[in-house]
Amino acid sequence: MQAKVPVGILGATGVVGQRFVQLLEHHPWFEVAWLAASDRSEGRAYGEAARWRMKTALPSRVAEMRVSPAKPEGAPRIIFAALDSSIAAELEPRFAEAGCAVVTNSSALRMQSDVPLVIPEVNPDHIALIDIQPWRKKSGGFVVTNSNCSAMGLVLALAPLHRQFGIETIMAVTMQAVSGAGYPGVPSLDILGNVIPYIAKEEEKMEEETGKLLGKLDGSKIVQASFSMSAQCNRVAVEDGHTESIAVKLTKKVSAEQIIRAWSEFRGAAQELNLPSAPKNPVQYLTAPDRPQPRFDVDAGNGMTTTVGRLRPCGVLDWKFTLLSHNTIRGAAGAALLNAELLKVKGYLA
Amino acid sequence: MQAKVPVGILGATGVVGQRFVQLLEHHPWFEVAWLAASDRSEGRAYGEAARWRMKTALPSRVAEMRVSPAKPEGAPRIIFAALDSSIAAELEPRFAEAGCAVVTNSSALRMQSDVPLVIPEVNPDHIALIDIQPWRKKSGGFVVTNSNCSAMGLVLALAPLHRQFGIETIMAVTMQAVSGAGYPGVPSLDILGNVIPYIAKEEEKMEEETGKLLGKLDGSKIVQASFSMSAQCNRVAVEDGHTESIAVKLTKKVSAEQIIRAWSEFRGAAQELNLPSAPKNPVQYLTAPDRPQPRFDVDAGNGMTTTVGRLRPCGVLDWKFTLLSHNTIRGAAGAALLNAELLKVKGYLA
Amino acid sequence: MQAKVPVGILGATGVVGQRFVQLLEHHPWFEVAWLAASDRSEGRAYGEAARWRMKTALPSRVAEMRVSPAKPEGAPRIIFAALDSSIAAELEPRFAEAGCAVVTNSSALRMQSDVPLVIPEVNPDHIALIDIQPWRKKSGGFVVTNSNCSAMGLVLALAPLHRQFGIETIMAVTMQAVSGAGYPGVPSLDILGNVIPYIAKEEEKMEEETGKLLGKLDGSKIVQASFSMSAQCNRVAVEDGHTESIAVKLTKKVSAEQIIRAWSEFRGAAQELNLPSAPKNPVQYLTAPDRPQPRFDVDAGNGMTTTVGRLRPCGVLDWKFTLLSHNTIRGAAGAALLNAELLKVKGYLA
Amino acid sequence: MQAKVPVGILGATGVVGQRFVQLLEHHPWFEVAWLAASDRSEGRAYGEAARWRMKTALPSRVAEMRVSPAKPEGAPRIIFAALDSSIAAELEPRFAEAGCAVVTNSSALRMQSDVPLVIPEVNPDHIALIDIQPWRKKSGGFVVTNSNCSAMGLVLALAPLHRQFGIETIMAVTMQAVSGAGYPGVPSLDILGNVIPYIAKEEEKMEEETGKLLGKLDGSKIVQASFSMSAQCNRVAVEDGHTESIAVKLTKKVSAEQIIRAWSEFRGAAQELNLPSAPKNPVQYLTAPDRPQPRFDVDAGNGMTTTVGRLRPCGVLDWKFTLLSHNTIRGAAGAALLNAELLKVKGYLA
Repeated sequence: MQAKVPVGILGATGVVGQRFVQLLEHHPWFEVAWLAASDRSEGRAYGEAARWRMKTALPSRVAEMRVSPAKPEGAPRIIFAALDSSIAAELEPRFAEAGCAVVTNSSALRMQSDVPLVIPEVNPDHIALIDIQPWRKKSGGFVVTNSNCSAMGLVLALAPLHRQFGIETIMAVTMQAVSGAGYPGVPSLDILGNVIPYIAKEEEKMEEETGKLLGKLDGSKIVQASFSMSAQCNRVAVEDGHTESIAVKLTKKVSAEQIIRAWSEFRGAAQELNLPSAPKNPVQYLTAPDRPQPRFDVDAGNGMTTTVGRLRPCGVLDWKFTLLSHNTIRGAAGAALLNAELLKVKGYLA
Repeated sequence: MQAKVPVGILGATGVVGQRFVQLLEHHPWFEVAWLAASDRSEGRAYGEAARWRMKTALPSRVAEMRVSPAKPEGAPRIIFAALDSSIAAELEPRFAEAGCAVVTNSSALRMQSDVPLVIPEVNPDHIALIDIQPWRKKSGGFVVTNSNCSAMGLVLALAPLHRQFGIETIMAVTMQAVSGAGYPGVPSLDILGNVIPYIAKEEEKMEEETGKLLGKLDGSKIVQASFSMSAQCNRVAVEDGHTESIAVKLTKKVSAEQIIRAWSEFRGAAQELNLPSAPKNPVQYLTAPDRPQPRFDVDAGNGMTTTVGRLRPCGVLDWKFTLLSHNTIRGAAGAALLNAELLKVKGYLA
Repeated sequence: MQAKVPVGILGATGVVGQRFVQLLEHHPWFEVAWLAASDRSEGRAYGEAARWRMKTALPSRVAEMRVSPAKPEGAPRIIFAALDSSIAAELEPRFAEAGCAVVTNSSALRMQSDVPLVIPEVNPDHIALIDIQPWRKKSGGFVVTNSNCSAMGLVLALAPLHRQFGIETIMAVTMQAVSGAGYPGVPSLDILGNVIPYIAKEEEKMEEETGKLLGKLDGSKIVQASFSMSAQCNRVAVEDGHTESIAVKLTKKVSAEQIIRAWSEFRGAAQELNLPSAPKNPVQYLTAPDRPQPRFDVDAGNGMTTTVGRLRPCGVLDWKFTLLSHNTIRGAAGAALLNAELLKVKGYLA
Repeated sequence: MQAKVPVGILGATGVVGQRFVQLLEHHPWFEVAWLAASDRSEGRAYGEAARWRMKTALPSRVAEMRVSPAKPEGAPRIIFAALDSSIAAELEPRFAEAGCAVVTNSSALRMQSDVPLVIPEVNPDHIALIDIQPWRKKSGGFVVTNSNCSAMGLVLALAPLHRQFGIETIMAVTMQAVSGAGYPGVPSLDILGNVIPYIAKEEEKMEEETGKLLGKLDGSKIVQASFSMSAQCNRVAVEDGHTESIAVKLTKKVSAEQIIRAWSEFRGAAQELNLPSAPKNPVQYLTAPDRPQPRFDVDAGNGMTTTVGRLRPCGVLDWKFTLLSHNTIRGAAGAALLNAELLKVKGYLA
């Protein structure tokens, strides 16, 4: 049995940071060796610094670890990052410059032309962008990002259709869980019995990231996928799981059966390489007329599977359907973890 | 001071029936004189038969009234109906046949070609269909309907755009309140912390009713408005108020200011005739970036105003926006009441 | 018609500060003339500085007022205070020293021996403590407090029993609304679908304040009421309204009818003096077996009435019952307002 | 490997019936062989008859089983029952008479003098009552019951204190989850953002069952434990998990440490006999100041552990604390299953 690779978590006390701790607890390859958070937490035991919000118990080994300063000195080479975007914009390049492999959930660098935005089932080849990053040349460090939580489920559901049938138009309306806003995040007075039809910058991220994720690597740049798209993002009183009402126009005229088959048979590098966090099915179609629902389906594939249902013809575009994705697992920490697993297999973490 | 006109309520014990009781309590023209419900309630005092779910107190005069059998004999001429669709299909014609003016919230007869589906601000002229109803000729009775709760807010928001700029395409995704399902309606185990992406027959109703409401009266028939439309309906953990994420393509290219002005200046027969239940503004545009929200806006115009916000360009159609409408007031009992007021002014209740 | 008395609000941007603005909007005697909040808000228009969370619209006159620095200079004589306790401890004495009549909802000075803790229906005579306050002698300024939101409903329900029958023992378990924690207050991730069995310092406040409120003014000090008491405080997913399960042992053996009559007939100085914010009934007994409930009863008496129900014998003490009180109206801003009205009638605001 | 013992479920389609199916899926001793429900479901595949509300998938083997008529003919000997009380009162004796071992969650026969009301950790000796049941003598059949969901957590927390220190007085206020009312159960319109201070017959059950469970078997009858008790039961917007605010007076004066030790060291027949569904700790004390909470603690010990926290002195009785128990696992199906395991080990199922 081989020793596990030590990894660090930047932004370890937040909701996504806690998910990293949780998901890494029994990971076969990686082991948490370093935790950093804001100055306020520095030097304290993690168990005291973090207000633990996961439903599984905080591992006692991690609880006792001291929170390090958020500096590359003393950090392990592999860093999972879950920082607020404004802080990430400053810190992630610093860690990459110091030679770290920064696998981040932050939006700060996602759309930067030399930073891969990757879903292992969808566009694993985009990791080649790493090689044109200036940090890579200098210190061996680099940054790899995963998508926004609202784009993640959508792109997983669209990828097989895009691949097989072509996509011309996407309309997406989201009903997003409160955990997507972190902790303390959404005040209860704002959301109990309510819908908030606005999440700052979410629609922009969702639209542009979808284009990059489904885009093509052409030499050393990504050519965005060429469809028109419109997103409308809402917050609802759900703990975990973003539900999305989707309509699409495809290039080929196909049947519902063909679409469902495309979803059911969809596999990608994550599955082919047997990555430890890969779900058996990246996309699962549910036949019940009223599914997916957060209450029942959010944990499908340990939170890594996007569930889809209600496929039916659309009076405006071709098809409409509902999808559900776990926003802090597949849409955040689990996504970064799967990216790190891909990077390891591809030799980027050596 | 003139005596008030006696009215009856069919299906008086349900959530919409209770809204009728509530809204009629201080009505200047009408007065509840007769209440009917299922056999189970017959003969009991209304206060005992109904499990009162309104936040205002049940008027004691009404509480003491006996629940009558659901038969036209002994009923007043004007009947507000809030029956389940299957029962309405049988009972409403029977009351109309007996000479009653049936002003109903039920979906049973809405799409029947000789039954007007009316919003006083939108298509008041459609009430002319009454004159071709066979009941009308025979006994003077007739049936007038209002729309489904999900179509109501949408059509109010679309009507001024349709009138001024033309509408070619509508995409609607709803997040509907639980009160729309009546009482007991949605089990708490189904909706606490959840989204249900399915409401039986709701999408079909929303699409077809929108076409009829925005349609043109041509002689004795309604020519459906000619746009393409697609609706996706979801249930969320909100008590009252349907929120909808809308995208539209207009015939004319207009500015956001023109659209907002069209909404703000929108008035219809309800306002022109000073109907007692008419809101000052059928549509109100909110400028805050995160509104409308059920918590704050559902009672705008005493629940009769549709609030609209977040107008912005759409990457697929022309514009997108959010709307909110009170589903058991404007979308049910208040809608029927406003229809009855229109009918009275137009001489149909004499 | 007399000019209204100008008043100021300290801590005007918080949830209780907003309630002051809302309740003062149509007040017959007082008018908001000055608003202060934290440094962050200073100089900004109130409408921008406050994230308005009330369901009625922010009055435009108030929206345009500038937020003043939280200093007595330039402030009106009458100050309603809704500050966090730690800040109140410092600022309230400063305003009193400068001659202001500080009518506060903060807990900072409530238990100080020369500061009256007053409910006009219960212990209006306690305002005499004002005259021994050092500020009073020096500048005419003083501080008057109202109780914690969890104690308020309890003491209103207990006062008539205490007066007529004597109280020996009180057991109280609360289920408190999230608005009691202010804004942003309770994170939605903490309370959706959950109960939190802990509110910092709440049980201590509830117990000690109950004793002082029901205590006797003896010369220039309050003799605490002599009963034993135990409080357990829980947070639940309710927006407004603290529900409490109460058990009491009385000195006299009485019947349920006697208790209900004591509640129904209970009146105090607030009613006798016709104070504008006084409810007709400070306590209202509901006969339905499953009431009071926040959904239906929280706004009784415009949020100033404590509703009580389910009176039944207790297997341990004598009686048990449920009560409900609006925590940000009767339990906060409305309480202070009623106190100010009492003070005005008693000549303390001249 | 031995063959599993076939068992049947009466009332298999309800929420508790579904829990039985779920908990039995991987049970080492028992296997679902027969399912019965109301006439409406008879003859249909279970997967169609039941509206599956569990979060784990319905096992396909069970989904395909036909629902049998609710009659002893053809039923296996061991029957888990989850019927409404009124139906249970009629059916359970009929199955016992026919020779079945009826292990039931229903309240119908719980307080009958010859029917054991059992918690294996608390009063396993009470199963001796089986031998005086007339059915037992006639056909070998018998009925064993478990407690109400609100009494279960309480009695588990009290048992070690009762055993070691004596209990004189109990005050209990519950905040109960909606799943306790079954499905469809509590309408969402009743509970969203609300507290309902009433659950029919719950307080009576909680009080009398606690006395019987902590009572002593004296020859062939149970002598109720002799403490005074008072329960107040509320419904809150929580899916699973009853939270209870408890105060107790003990016979011995003890320290908090002694009480916590009594809880931590508490073991009973369930643990000693290594029953498959027994939690390692029947009671677990949590040291965080704001726990237990349904969100985090309801699944402790696979839903079989009662979590306790906030032990502190009480101003009226001796001690107060909060407890949490999973109402449909430990408080219903899991309780019956544990009873069946005890019965098997004790030879009653042979």
